Amino acid sequence: MIKIESSRNKIIKEIVSLKQKKYREQKKLFIVEGERLLSEADPLYVLIREGYDGDTERFSNVYTAPAGVFDKAADTISPQGIIGVCKIPETYLSALPKEPFVVILDRVSDPGNLGTVIRTADAAGADAVVLSEGCADPYNPKTIRSTMGSIFHLPVYRNINIAEFLKNSNIKTFAAHLKGKKSCFKTDMTGGTGIIIGNEANGICDDIAALATELVKIPMPGKAESLNASAAAAIMIYEAVRQRTEM
Amino acid sequence: MIKIESSRNKIIKEIVSLKQKKYREQKKLFIVEGERLLSEADPLYVLIREGYDGDTERFSNVYTAPAGVFDKAADTISPQGIIGVCKIPETYLSALPKEPFVVILDRVSDPGNLGTVIRTADAAGADAVVLSEGCADPYNPKTIRSTMGSIFHLPVYRNINIAEFLKNSNIKTFAAHLKGKKSCFKTDMTGGTGIIIGNEANGICDDIAALATELVKIPMPGKAESLNASAAAAIMIYEAVRQRTEM
Repeated sequence: MIKIESSRNKIIKEIVSLKQKKYREQKKLFIVEGERLLSEADPLYVLIREGYDGDTERFSNVYTAPAGVFDKAADTISPQGIIGVCKIPETYLSALPKEPFVVILDRVSDPGNLGTVIRTADAAGADAVVLSEGCADPYNPKTIRSTMGSIFHLPVYRNINIAEFLKNSNIKTFAAHLKGKKSCFKTDMTGGTGIIIGNEANGICDDIAALATELVKIPMPGKAESLNASAAAAIMIYEAVRQRTEM
Repeated sequence: MIKIESSRNKIIKEIVSLKQKKYREQKKLFIVEGERLLSEADPLYVLIREGYDGDTERFSNVYTAPAGVFDKAADTISPQGIIGVCKIPETYLSALPKEPFVVILDRVSDPGNLGTVIRTADAAGADAVVLSEGCADPYNPKTIRSTMGSIFHLPVYRNINIAEFLKNSNIKTFAAHLKGKKSCFKTDMTGGTGIIIGNEANGICDDIAALATELVKIPMPGKAESLNASAAAAIMIYEAVRQRTEM
């Protein structure tokens, strides 16, 4: 256990820097806060607040800092008083199974929505989440929190050229689209399947929509004009679960 | 158009006070920000930022304030520069249809989740959203934003004693519960139906779970232990839509 006294210490500075995407990309590191999330992670080191009473035995590098210094490093007011720094895993599309079940996001920009979709995809047993350029960063602390640990359960591919991905894959892909004619409940989502969800305000890019096997609509018998992106994703992903497990 | 010069003006003070639930309850008023949301609202008055170029003709009471004063009143940095103050509508459970389709929330505490569920319920054509005590306030500015206007489309009943509501209603109710045995996809959600979703961390109260017609599970073939409350709601609500529209 190494004691840190000052917020000018390089460990504190590193953790603070990792709140910014630029430094996360540069260092290939991200922050995981709280005991529960860290229980699934394999951090390079952890920083604890003085007086933290959780178990730190399994961590190989433990730094401790007084509350004032710790709280500067933390992204939230973390009553648990533990932060870990983890490596961003390398991911290879070639590792996907032959007929995967994947969730594809086109410029979904809200970190909370992104985290929720990753969590839903994980619950559904999806093989991966594939993110276009312009999506929120899955390693943003807010995204990490809303994945509730799912970020550690399935590969999340970042900065993928979705058009290329669709051209090179042999899965059926269903894009939730306001111009979709067929209901998402009339699709066949068994076998290799990709569900495509677009940006919160603008939906799916035209070039991606053109490459999808089918544009589908989520029926909206009520008055709302659209659904939240993570709600739309949950509906489509779970229609696939229903078809794969209940029929 | 009445010009406001100072942030000590009583209109500015009223708007600022309405960010707090206490004053919303006292005055039975809430804030609606932005042109799009306001297009569906019927505000008592609106406040615009000097230089706002949208149409304000349809509003009967328009106040204008310089940017510095306006921005103090706004809850977000509102590039649109318009805020309205609206009456919280009175709602009566007796106005529900005889066999309603309702979404019942037990202590869902995140304003964003609550707004998303209201939006999903609206899209699905639900008759109402019924909130227990301890839910987030639907008139919280963050909730209003995430409803994307749906708050104006269907009644949202607040501070309802859910146990009493369930005893007095003659609808089938399905509670998403980790102890549920039957899959939500094996239910019959046609006819009078209530979908019950619980608190983000603690799920549904035991007394409410005991009164539900059935505890159901949302299948989770993957590794996540649970779903986000608004994702779980979307899955259950849309299973009802599927059964009601596609079969």
